[in-house]
Amino acid sequence: MLKRINKLPFELLSPQSTGVIGPYTKPIAYVSPGDEIEVETWDCYGGAVKPGQTRQQAVDRGIKLPANPVTGPIFVEGAEPGDVLAIDILGIKMPERGFTSLRQGVSPIGLQVEQAKTRFSEIIGNRIHYVTDKGRTISLEADPFIGTIGISPLSEAISTITPGSHGGNMDCPDIQTGARLLLKVNHKGALLSLGDVHAIQGDGEICGTAVEIDAVVRLRLNIIKGSNITWPHIETLEEIMTVCSARPLEDAARLAYRELINWMVADYGWNRDDAQILLSLVAKARIAQIVDPQYTVVAKLDKKYLKE
Amino acid sequence: MLKRINKLPFELLSPQSTGVIGPYTKPIAYVSPGDEIEVETWDCYGGAVKPGQTRQQAVDRGIKLPANPVTGPIFVEGAEPGDVLAIDILGIKMPERGFTSLRQGVSPIGLQVEQAKTRFSEIIGNRIHYVTDKGRTISLEADPFIGTIGISPLSEAISTITPGSHGGNMDCPDIQTGARLLLKVNHKGALLSLGDVHAIQGDGEICGTAVEIDAVVRLRLNIIKGSNITWPHIETLEEIMTVCSARPLEDAARLAYRELINWMVADYGWNRDDAQILLSLVAKARIAQIVDPQYTVVAKLDKKYLKE
Amino acid sequence: MLKRINKLPFELLSPQSTGVIGPYTKPIAYVSPGDEIEVETWDCYGGAVKPGQTRQQAVDRGIKLPANPVTGPIFVEGAEPGDVLAIDILGIKMPERGFTSLRQGVSPIGLQVEQAKTRFSEIIGNRIHYVTDKGRTISLEADPFIGTIGISPLSEAISTITPGSHGGNMDCPDIQTGARLLLKVNHKGALLSLGDVHAIQGDGEICGTAVEIDAVVRLRLNIIKGSNITWPHIETLEEIMTVCSARPLEDAARLAYRELINWMVADYGWNRDDAQILLSLVAKARIAQIVDPQYTVVAKLDKKYLKE
Amino acid sequence: MLKRINKLPFELLSPQSTGVIGPYTKPIAYVSPGDEIEVETWDCYGGAVKPGQTRQQAVDRGIKLPANPVTGPIFVEGAEPGDVLAIDILGIKMPERGFTSLRQGVSPIGLQVEQAKTRFSEIIGNRIHYVTDKGRTISLEADPFIGTIGISPLSEAISTITPGSHGGNMDCPDIQTGARLLLKVNHKGALLSLGDVHAIQGDGEICGTAVEIDAVVRLRLNIIKGSNITWPHIETLEEIMTVCSARPLEDAARLAYRELINWMVADYGWNRDDAQILLSLVAKARIAQIVDPQYTVVAKLDKKYLKE
Repeated sequence: MLKRINKLPFELLSPQSTGVIGPYTKPIAYVSPGDEIEVETWDCYGGAVKPGQTRQQAVDRGIKLPANPVTGPIFVEGAEPGDVLAIDILGIKMPERGFTSLRQGVSPIGLQVEQAKTRFSEIIGNRIHYVTDKGRTISLEADPFIGTIGISPLSEAISTITPGSHGGNMDCPDIQTGARLLLKVNHKGALLSLGDVHAIQGDGEICGTAVEIDAVVRLRLNIIKGSNITWPHIETLEEIMTVCSARPLEDAARLAYRELINWMVADYGWNRDDAQILLSLVAKARIAQIVDPQYTVVAKLDKKYLKE
Repeated sequence: MLKRINKLPFELLSPQSTGVIGPYTKPIAYVSPGDEIEVETWDCYGGAVKPGQTRQQAVDRGIKLPANPVTGPIFVEGAEPGDVLAIDILGIKMPERGFTSLRQGVSPIGLQVEQAKTRFSEIIGNRIHYVTDKGRTISLEADPFIGTIGISPLSEAISTITPGSHGGNMDCPDIQTGARLLLKVNHKGALLSLGDVHAIQGDGEICGTAVEIDAVVRLRLNIIKGSNITWPHIETLEEIMTVCSARPLEDAARLAYRELINWMVADYGWNRDDAQILLSLVAKARIAQIVDPQYTVVAKLDKKYLKE
Repeated sequence: MLKRINKLPFELLSPQSTGVIGPYTKPIAYVSPGDEIEVETWDCYGGAVKPGQTRQQAVDRGIKLPANPVTGPIFVEGAEPGDVLAIDILGIKMPERGFTSLRQGVSPIGLQVEQAKTRFSEIIGNRIHYVTDKGRTISLEADPFIGTIGISPLSEAISTITPGSHGGNMDCPDIQTGARLLLKVNHKGALLSLGDVHAIQGDGEICGTAVEIDAVVRLRLNIIKGSNITWPHIETLEEIMTVCSARPLEDAARLAYRELINWMVADYGWNRDDAQILLSLVAKARIAQIVDPQYTVVAKLDKKYLKE
Repeated sequence: MLKRINKLPFELLSPQSTGVIGPYTKPIAYVSPGDEIEVETWDCYGGAVKPGQTRQQAVDRGIKLPANPVTGPIFVEGAEPGDVLAIDILGIKMPERGFTSLRQGVSPIGLQVEQAKTRFSEIIGNRIHYVTDKGRTISLEADPFIGTIGISPLSEAISTITPGSHGGNMDCPDIQTGARLLLKVNHKGALLSLGDVHAIQGDGEICGTAVEIDAVVRLRLNIIKGSNITWPHIETLEEIMTVCSARPLEDAARLAYRELINWMVADYGWNRDDAQILLSLVAKARIAQIVDPQYTVVAKLDKKYLKE
């Protein structure tokens, strides 16, 4: 049976409910392990920026833009602190268009922006029609993923614009259809929230936005007892990955590699030094984003190297 | 005609000659633009660590390990400050084995090393036979590249272990056969030096070494007048890339993306804001290394997006 | 009239109440602007580490150490979002002893710790009797200050070990008797919490602890309407200061200087460039701590330069 | 006997001679240990910016501004690699004026500069008459120090704008009259160079310049055999200090504290853990600058705590 979880109406979005991930927000849905669910999500501004409009025009009309409003919390029956929540991403349905916004001032990579822009791109099938200033249309292959997904910390309520060990705004393109995301449960029921889906994003998300969309995300949730992880893990058919967020960026990379080594030791019987050497030879790393309050790096290892 | 440039004998390696890249070292060869050359290079310790031996045993025997000794400087006739030196990498011949070394103490990613190790791997054809502590052989596909390659700064003599705008120890796997590396000329003759070839390396080179090899590298050098770059550029059939080195790591990423945007503006007619937005959607970034005195990031754009 | 606000009993300390600063915790006291209050505070472990005992022994006895438990929230009548809360620190009463703890593993500055230590120092009058491993007593002059003091963010509940624009665990020795601390109000009633008093601390707090004490702090609270600040400000008879927390440390310093320039422009009529030049000649900066989740820098200007 | 060492004439300043500190520059003077010398130094632009003129006007007139030209190298007889060079600063004679320059663009702390400025200040006795945009004169007490002072690395030639373990452009106000600076000798004769004296500077030197002056510096040089330091040390009557340069800034602070602990262990018999704890209670740290290619932190300990 497929359970549908709708997003809250725009009028009910608020910093204290849909603007944080934490233990103080009342669950909006209860699901059982193994259930397949469909979750409706808002785009990063709660749909407040309309096609044909710029972000600035919405602000000028007195609209208070919600920041990365999430759908949730979803209470997972049986999830207890110390467990791991396994989230299988089964599908992401995209809308007919998404937008990209470049804000006035100094951009995240240190460039003076000549002209603030909000640009809508049509999404047709799996293609994104991106139109440049000069009117040229570039067809991009969509690669949709969940930008913000996380579960409650023990006691903190963390802004939905911040990533961390609880997940959150990781902006990590590897959290896509076919992947399993693993998060350490800190609170009874896990309290999962998600939103901020991107139709496509480059490494670093350097102008601060991707192709921002609302979406419907299909998931299956399971609880794993007796596992032990610190930071988010991702598993696909081909790879194991760890996702760590920190500043400066090298600290995010170091944490991600240490977590990956711990995984190799715990689940695949490697000794630590050997794991470190192998990663020095064959690991991949992705800079997910360098624009949020903590920066995110994904460390990856092809599973073919793991089999003993 | 193929010109061969031999490496100096081990006895002549010295910090002041083969340990720096700068204007104070006398050229060992003169080549003309368009010449195809074959350059013999040392491994990162000048061959001082022998098969069956550990790095520490070499040190204990009183051998002073050279640090990334380079072959050069090679004087390119006609190269003047303000020009760009284009280096086409035509081939890299690997030896029969390479080594990987993990040093005692706290590793670059912050792990206490249980046991210092120097591990030799056989290279057969294009496969590297890496043997784990437990005696398992893992066959890795070689992906050889030039770890250290650079030209003289205007006045500094920079250690061959440091990367920078002059190139140097970038440890960037994209500097491989088929690529063209572009460096800004600061000194008459350019004064090219290279060494430290790696048979394979993971993103970050996290244990501090890759599969370290001596090699014979085939190159063609050309001079481009009237171009304007600040940091190293790489061009392949598919991509344009920029290679920047700094600390913290986010500064290297920001510099690489700014340089890539400058390239799009100068050579492909993009406006700056538009280039920044496109990269936010489709760019790729590689963490080349986080173990040298400056950290290195490569920003990349698929050429298919460039064509107007 | 002096109002006394007691700390919660140890049994009631919890991560969700005394372990975070945020809008979800019920006030424990209500005060009026102008009131003088006396607030009892816990030491950084809630008194769980007893004299003669080490931190590790407390942990081994199964005690869950609270992390920086605070006393609060204190609701200030009339405080509204957009106001500034002015906190005059009138006095700090120290107990008879405090402790310093160095934990096993790699210390925050990267040194392998030979032996974990918890060391109690007697406090007699204004002197701290610190005894070295070799049994030598060094008499330190106490310089007590409030390590953790902050008010509720708009929607986040932030761990009491983290500093930020809301204040929190700044570990800033300038927040001492005689100083006025100014914090931007985000939530009705401001919701002030404090704890983690230090009898003395060096710049950086490099081993992770200072001389940690419980204390009784006397304060007067006032509300300032129509002011505009982003980060915590401090004012004394001699200086104006700003306190910013970020990573890497240079970002904390840059933020603190920018906030100080804003202050000079807003309240003292300087133009921005001129303020920046003057600070380049005469400003002082303090590294408060480099051991918490964000690092803290204080930028300072002697008031004698401000008078027009 | 007082030996005078003159600066080179402006026409002879060049990037390869006075623009780097390294082993490739021919000594301009030879001195014996114990000699008192007087060294003439250039300001940071070699005097090219004249009173009444702005930096930009000098550039527009086609003058190539030298970057931190130094006077040297001075060969110290008997200095061998492994020794320590002790430099006693006996006096600094200031000229009648100095200048401060704020450049166009984004300033080092991230502010858009409204108007580039070069501002000359009169120096009368020990007072600096700084005049604001609004015509107000502020009298600053001069606190002159040597901004750039260093000795040759083993093989690198380092730009005079960069600080490091060899000294260089540390911009550290503690290198002033009455202090003894200690530098590790890497090259026969030590090869001392200096320049870039500042009449006064705030912590961080945030606009990129201080009150920049040419000067005459009186020094006495001595060689200490059998000592062992890695980074520059400073000793005064009251304090011992270490000066480390790195990025990010926290790495400079960590290095400085580790070097200070090493000093306490080596020369004062402390054990390492105990030294680390004491510094956590009483150490001071100064942010010297956050504008050069490496950032500089000074860690300090009052000598009264050292005596056993």
